[in-house]
Amino acid sequence: MRDESTTAALTERLGRELPAGRLLTDPAATAGYAHDEAEWAPYGAPLAVVRPRTAAEVQRVVRACRDHGVPIVTRGAGTGLSGGANAVDGCVVLSTETMTTIKEIDALERLAVVEPGVVNDHLRAACAERGLWYPPDPASAPWSTIGGNVATNAGGLCCVKYGVTRDYVLGLEFVTGTGELVRVGRRTAKGVAGYDLTALMVGSEGTLGVITEVTVRLRPRRLPEHTVAGYFSSTVDAGRAVAAVGAAGLTPSALELVDRHCLAAVDAWKNMGLSTEADVVLLGRTDAPGPAGEEEAEAMRRCFAEAGATYAVRSTDQQEADALFEARRLAYPALERLGPVLTEDVCVPKAAVPEMLGRIDAIAARHETLIANIAHAGDGNLHPLLITPPGDEAARKRAQAAFHEIIAEALALGGTVTGEHGVGLLKRDGLESELGPEVLALNRAIKDALDPQHLFNPGKVVARGAGR
Amino acid sequence: MRDESTTAALTERLGRELPAGRLLTDPAATAGYAHDEAEWAPYGAPLAVVRPRTAAEVQRVVRACRDHGVPIVTRGAGTGLSGGANAVDGCVVLSTETMTTIKEIDALERLAVVEPGVVNDHLRAACAERGLWYPPDPASAPWSTIGGNVATNAGGLCCVKYGVTRDYVLGLEFVTGTGELVRVGRRTAKGVAGYDLTALMVGSEGTLGVITEVTVRLRPRRLPEHTVAGYFSSTVDAGRAVAAVGAAGLTPSALELVDRHCLAAVDAWKNMGLSTEADVVLLGRTDAPGPAGEEEAEAMRRCFAEAGATYAVRSTDQQEADALFEARRLAYPALERLGPVLTEDVCVPKAAVPEMLGRIDAIAARHETLIANIAHAGDGNLHPLLITPPGDEAARKRAQAAFHEIIAEALALGGTVTGEHGVGLLKRDGLESELGPEVLALNRAIKDALDPQHLFNPGKVVARGAGR
Repeated sequence: MRDESTTAALTERLGRELPAGRLLTDPAATAGYAHDEAEWAPYGAPLAVVRPRTAAEVQRVVRACRDHGVPIVTRGAGTGLSGGANAVDGCVVLSTETMTTIKEIDALERLAVVEPGVVNDHLRAACAERGLWYPPDPASAPWSTIGGNVATNAGGLCCVKYGVTRDYVLGLEFVTGTGELVRVGRRTAKGVAGYDLTALMVGSEGTLGVITEVTVRLRPRRLPEHTVAGYFSSTVDAGRAVAAVGAAGLTPSALELVDRHCLAAVDAWKNMGLSTEADVVLLGRTDAPGPAGEEEAEAMRRCFAEAGATYAVRSTDQQEADALFEARRLAYPALERLGPVLTEDVCVPKAAVPEMLGRIDAIAARHETLIANIAHAGDGNLHPLLITPPGDEAARKRAQAAFHEIIAEALALGGTVTGEHGVGLLKRDGLESELGPEVLALNRAIKDALDPQHLFNPGKVVARGAGR
Repeated sequence: MRDESTTAALTERLGRELPAGRLLTDPAATAGYAHDEAEWAPYGAPLAVVRPRTAAEVQRVVRACRDHGVPIVTRGAGTGLSGGANAVDGCVVLSTETMTTIKEIDALERLAVVEPGVVNDHLRAACAERGLWYPPDPASAPWSTIGGNVATNAGGLCCVKYGVTRDYVLGLEFVTGTGELVRVGRRTAKGVAGYDLTALMVGSEGTLGVITEVTVRLRPRRLPEHTVAGYFSSTVDAGRAVAAVGAAGLTPSALELVDRHCLAAVDAWKNMGLSTEADVVLLGRTDAPGPAGEEEAEAMRRCFAEAGATYAVRSTDQQEADALFEARRLAYPALERLGPVLTEDVCVPKAAVPEMLGRIDAIAARHETLIANIAHAGDGNLHPLLITPPGDEAARKRAQAAFHEIIAEALALGGTVTGEHGVGLLKRDGLESELGPEVLALNRAIKDALDPQHLFNPGKVVARGAGR
């Protein structure tokens, strides 16, 4: 905790410099801002929460905190899964939730300019009204904010064809560690003027500055998709299907894997009868235009069948297609019925997906932990879901050991500890293993250069040691 | 110049630590490595040129130069257009020209691993043999290297649909300013482990390290393209056509503009009769699959016609299509017959292209300078070509004034000083205007963090003051 005089002086200044309603200090109110959705990640008690509405207000908060040496933890909707937005004791939590203006959607330049608190789905809906499309589609899209998506470089289902958040961020406005409000990037389609500070900020998880405005690239309206479903009796067969899709030169607009644990959980809840039919379900989509889409869907179905699918079908109507994806969506809530779910996020080379799934099964058995898997199979991005019975401390210890082994196995297979959720707190050890000391030192040199006082999100991502 | 004892000690060490044939000190041999293809950019005399063949040799060079305080200027093929690879007096030029191994092409993971001296077209050809495609296609592709392309974040014709070099670099190996050999990025499709040092290195023009290996993302084999040509009697009409293509939701795989000065130069050389037909020619391409490609080509043709094209045609055979693009390719050599050509590289919002072309015309008239234009119109990336009669010093002075005004006008229209060629030496003043002091300070903080001795490419890009 900060000493009381610092707390009093800072909250007095924030109260004075910000309009009414921006500052929360009642612990009952601030507690709701103390952590994101990462199971297991520790969090502290903020001394205050601020909800600024303008870049100028953000700047005032940053300068006040800088002057008082109080760290700032920025958060969007708090849907993160790595603890990146978790408060540390005595920090100020800066919530962007009220910065929700879509400032501009320009159809000709194919860009939008938004405040960081704009919810992903709101932006997508506003773009759709103009015949445009903002692709990044994390599962949290109905709640998560563009600012949070940028901070974690969020992915989603369509990334396999359309890339991740980084591929859509043209420019940013942010407040630096020295309290300056700056603009980086551009509004033009191309540009190489100076180092790519925009890309550096994307995925930096609130450790380098507070984003106050985001300029994103847009695409034309999305074409209708064709859906292909395949049932497989082993992960190896499903992995062979993923490889065959790539080898055939196909680029699906989604290629999702749901394993038998998920299928069983969905069946236990909704009785869809999936788990008796398949060990693994693969769901592919293509949005190639016109007959090419039909051909690509049929080619994908053939890849599934030739890889050994026990059932492979090209869905002919949209309703049926949506129903097929429903099982994937239901997997997470179905598993949550069994206990708290920790969502893992390793990403391995595509060829290693079956091997990785096999190793996860072995880890689950070794540590007597239920580990289900949904995966962006076309990306090699796996989401092992570790479920522990509520209140079972021994089970939780075993699951934590399993968690660390999953990370180690992903690295051994040439993968990364986090495909799209970020490092936050949960992957700090994994990050050190992945990067090695020299690259970690480069990361820290950048942190020191841009946030010399270590004002932003202490203890996260590349921070030295534990906590601040 | 370095003092003679430093020079002698360094060259002695390099000679001792490197295999035979790597070190060149004869001024007749080193002179050929002193500059790139940027007209007007100053350059000095290197004390030596090294041509290492392995990452370990690069590391030995960097450590030797670090120990002796001698700067390193890295170059690929020397096809740069901003002076970014120009030697400074007493530097070591490190040429990657002999690091030409394509280490790996992986069809399933859709990636290639190459040494930095691999020529762009060689990589593209090797990928094509495997049914794969490396999209970035700068005009220099027959000569320029992947290392140089990464250093400048090179663009090209297909960027309007497929993005620039940055969009294809997954990972890098490089030697840092402290002489460490490090790997950043990944081989997986996604990943957010730590700051995006890969993106930071891309476009850093040799100022942050020496790249020794590049891992690039690949796409499946390219589909055949349809070509559409439009003749316009004014830049305003052509600009309206570009806007109409965007508004129609089309994403051409190329959209190139050739202005009347280029057409006249091509006619004066090849007598193609273009300049009597048009003030501006627009060349569009689409590679949408199957009937969608034909529909998109026809839709593009309609956009051209409705915007006021005096002639708009969808080319039905590939030979005719290639002939249409020939005029664009011939523009540069046709202009070079008139005198040295300085290639400008501003990029403006697409809507501002006609206005920018108009302002360039006015600047040309005001400074009595011949300025022709080719442009990646779909990107808003213009290449004004400033031609001065050989040996005419007064004309050169006028052209330099015009050059600075073009940069100022591009910034005034919300553009950037460099779309794809880099800052090098020629755009340093422009960079300062574009970024402003706070963002420039952030850039310099990063330079200081990663290259604390300012060993790499002194005086370029974000360097303070002139030269080292």
